[in-house]
Amino acid sequence: MRVRKKKNCDIRLEKSGSLWIKNPEMLKGKWHGEFGNQNPIHIEIGCGKGKFICEMAEKYPDINFVAIEVVKDVMVIAMEKAEPLGLSNLRFIIADASGLSDYFEKGEVERIYLNFSDPWKKRKQAKRRLTHKNFLDVYKKVLKNGDLICFKTDNKALFEFSLNSFAEENFKMSQICFDLHNSDFEDNVMTEYEMRFSEQGMPIYRVCATFIGWEDQKNT
Amino acid sequence: MRVRKKKNCDIRLEKSGSLWIKNPEMLKGKWHGEFGNQNPIHIEIGCGKGKFICEMAEKYPDINFVAIEVVKDVMVIAMEKAEPLGLSNLRFIIADASGLSDYFEKGEVERIYLNFSDPWKKRKQAKRRLTHKNFLDVYKKVLKNGDLICFKTDNKALFEFSLNSFAEENFKMSQICFDLHNSDFEDNVMTEYEMRFSEQGMPIYRVCATFIGWEDQKNT
Repeated sequence: MRVRKKKNCDIRLEKSGSLWIKNPEMLKGKWHGEFGNQNPIHIEIGCGKGKFICEMAEKYPDINFVAIEVVKDVMVIAMEKAEPLGLSNLRFIIADASGLSDYFEKGEVERIYLNFSDPWKKRKQAKRRLTHKNFLDVYKKVLKNGDLICFKTDNKALFEFSLNSFAEENFKMSQICFDLHNSDFEDNVMTEYEMRFSEQGMPIYRVCATFIGWEDQKNT
Repeated sequence: MRVRKKKNCDIRLEKSGSLWIKNPEMLKGKWHGEFGNQNPIHIEIGCGKGKFICEMAEKYPDINFVAIEVVKDVMVIAMEKAEPLGLSNLRFIIADASGLSDYFEKGEVERIYLNFSDPWKKRKQAKRRLTHKNFLDVYKKVLKNGDLICFKTDNKALFEFSLNSFAEENFKMSQICFDLHNSDFEDNVMTEYEMRFSEQGMPIYRVCATFIGWEDQKNT
């Protein structure tokens, strides 16, 4: 997400400081201690302005959520949205998805949400897409067999790319949906983008992908 | 495919009789003998008027093709198209997909083509769709691990249904394509429907599904 640089961003980040994990690598393998419980940990990669993750944390108090965003001028908005809600099950880290395994142990994350990730439309930019093989390999390092990635997008080409990427990398797909808002799916929490796009009548695509470790099984 | 009843259909079928296998259950396990070689056998379920299967048989002389169609008033057109081509690698059977394992042994078929199958749009008709679980179970009886189902359709809802069905039934998908005629795929042979739909600018969806026998592996 491209945004204008915020004035006093660092000062504003500090104000919502209790939600902000400045050194996430220190918590690798210790996130349940940070939350003070053994509830499952779900993360959103690219939380943007935070509507989705804040609503999820309110809706599911028995899940711990970690919002990850690389652009701190956006994350400050998300944190300022979260702060007055007084949620004990939500934390924020400023980070890039590629470093995920520096912050979480294998199996420490039970679910990854990818919502309206940048489509990086040009073919030569494919490696930057958050469903590219290289990123899926990173996710495998923090998920365990049977854990989920939930992916939503308005971008048809990115969705097509992602289905192929999940299939090739031995994720078992489920709930493949070409028009989420006209489907039977009931528990949808919308992002800022999703609100805007669906108001314009654009279909929202969604898929869940389960890491099954197919290759491991074939070799046994 | 719904068609008007043909006059003299049976007489016309007899005229192209060398291509028509009247008692396919007699050939179960013996198809390579019928073709007089050990080439792979590919089948099309619902061959319609036969454009696809005739062109495939011409293009790939080292593959044996069996065209299956339940409506004999359509199949007669396909057979009359095939007959003057003098193809030794093509046969026709009048049959329903549900009986497939009565005609072929496990592993006797290496590839199944499903082209523009009836979408059976109403939810209560889902069981009639050729990518419904019940049909996939039949296909598993004639395919062996690693064999392919190639599926094309212009119907978005049927495509969405089919992707979910393949995923649920432990087929590994590949070459998922939302717009075949604007993709990199080069070896496409078109059906009659496909010609018409693509001329109207409608996108053609395509997916390949490989039977991997995932469940078997999980249980080992």
